[in-house]
Amino acid sequence: MTRTAQTIEGHAMTEVLPEGVRARVQVPASSANLGPGFDSLGLALGIHDLIDVSTTGSGLDVDVAGEGAGEVSLSSSHLVVRAVERGLDAAGVWATGLRVACRNAIPHSRGLGSSAAAVVGGLVAANELVTESFPEHRLTNDQLLQLASGFEGHPDNAAACIYGGAAVSWSDHCGPDRRYSTAPLAVHADIRAHVFVPTARSSTSAARGLLPEQVPHTAAAFNAGRSALMVVALTQRPDLLLEGTEDLLHQPYRAKAMPESARLVAALRERGIAAAISGAGPTVLALSTADPGAAEQETARALGMTMRSVGVARGAGRV
Amino acid sequence: MTRTAQTIEGHAMTEVLPEGVRARVQVPASSANLGPGFDSLGLALGIHDLIDVSTTGSGLDVDVAGEGAGEVSLSSSHLVVRAVERGLDAAGVWATGLRVACRNAIPHSRGLGSSAAAVVGGLVAANELVTESFPEHRLTNDQLLQLASGFEGHPDNAAACIYGGAAVSWSDHCGPDRRYSTAPLAVHADIRAHVFVPTARSSTSAARGLLPEQVPHTAAAFNAGRSALMVVALTQRPDLLLEGTEDLLHQPYRAKAMPESARLVAALRERGIAAAISGAGPTVLALSTADPGAAEQETARALGMTMRSVGVARGAGRV
Repeated sequence: MTRTAQTIEGHAMTEVLPEGVRARVQVPASSANLGPGFDSLGLALGIHDLIDVSTTGSGLDVDVAGEGAGEVSLSSSHLVVRAVERGLDAAGVWATGLRVACRNAIPHSRGLGSSAAAVVGGLVAANELVTESFPEHRLTNDQLLQLASGFEGHPDNAAACIYGGAAVSWSDHCGPDRRYSTAPLAVHADIRAHVFVPTARSSTSAARGLLPEQVPHTAAAFNAGRSALMVVALTQRPDLLLEGTEDLLHQPYRAKAMPESARLVAALRERGIAAAISGAGPTVLALSTADPGAAEQETARALGMTMRSVGVARGAGRV
Repeated sequence: MTRTAQTIEGHAMTEVLPEGVRARVQVPASSANLGPGFDSLGLALGIHDLIDVSTTGSGLDVDVAGEGAGEVSLSSSHLVVRAVERGLDAAGVWATGLRVACRNAIPHSRGLGSSAAAVVGGLVAANELVTESFPEHRLTNDQLLQLASGFEGHPDNAAACIYGGAAVSWSDHCGPDRRYSTAPLAVHADIRAHVFVPTARSSTSAARGLLPEQVPHTAAAFNAGRSALMVVALTQRPDLLLEGTEDLLHQPYRAKAMPESARLVAALRERGIAAAISGAGPTVLALSTADPGAAEQETARALGMTMRSVGVARGAGRV
């Protein structure tokens, strides 16, 4: 725990957690964009990573099972540990040692917010350890959002992960003192969420490279209107989900990089199901008031994708 | 009434209104865009035109008082008559003659939706005449929206005029069978609306000419997020109005054509009041939970603009 010890040194009032404190949290997957709300709209989905953190006398013991197991140094498991340490640090609390066990269910590099989940999960787990021994040091949800978005560079997935449901998120300004904000939305009770997850992976940074520097003003105006509409559809008018998920800002440009996903989105939309690329893809998110039928699932299978009924999730918290 | 008679000829079941049927309606001003929601968001404002229509034995008698008086052939008064005729026609009803009296309070060519008000007012007045004698021929609000948006070419002001409050509006597709849609929003009770009206006029088509063909993708994404946020601010979170009215798609490009308005918007926003150009300008709309103070009004006066506390209005209807 050299890292934590170093980070903490400057703190005026660092408390030390006793050994044997334990927190088990679950953290949801999330889908960003939801069609028109590029880098703004997010939705928490019912696929959960479980993070089990305990304080020990010394050292760091990490165990990862499920998604990402065997890829520890490359993937989100490291991120969980860094997030736990960052959370303790921000709360002014120190642990002499940590055991971190991750049981991951959120597929990696599929546009389902696995890195946001790792970060938020680590932070929330740390916060639960803090709360157990020093409740006055507990971090607020807004502090968690600042910390998580700082890791991510954007707040859309992190906000959904922390608050659950859907959220409109934004950054107040750029630079070192950037502030992240979110307005949580209560998702209409009739809305069901499904994801179609392909075996192929996608890199968010590669997907961003497909976007043009400039877009037509008409496309920009189109998305401004549709993202406003999507807030109405999500909260009050599920009958408007199909129109509320129309987008001209990212999906058309990325379609050629994920042709199966693009084809599935088109096929589902033709059948009246509000489908969109989840985040930077290649997962397809489908929102509707009725479950997709056998025909839709067969179409997806033929394109190499499996449907999962996931629903809308609450925010990260103790199990 | 040659025009009405001609238009009506094809109707299978045209009813004729008796003489002496009268309808008096009031129709609100409206503000489009509300910052980020270019051609999409609209808000009905408490400045009203009054339209008084009666059936007569023959001929057409038009009287205009207030805004637009003396400019009949150039301005919205003609539009009112055309809208009355279009409304009767759509309802399958004919009048042998009409008397139309307009008392206009909505300033013309200031970005306050005077032409949408003229059209909606005429249609609603016609519909009230129809309802009086042939209630089964009454047009629905959606039919009124199709007719009014057809006149206007876009539904944002017309929807606010018809439904009142705020609305997210859109067109389903282009071409001759274009359909217009709207999702009305219940505006939060604490939100107050003020307008700062300059003496200068503006032409919507000239203002459109200032917009670029292409905009940065970052600006498009910014507006998509802010217009989603604006729906939340308008309906649930007045504390977010300032951030919800930020825009990069039209106001920066039009600022040089209306420098006083741009300066007032900036001055109000610096003081925490959510100000934006109303429609294509030059009127400035300010939304807040508290009334602007003497300092803001003095700033406006120095820039040649007068503040009016207008509030959010209901949709057009019988007086």
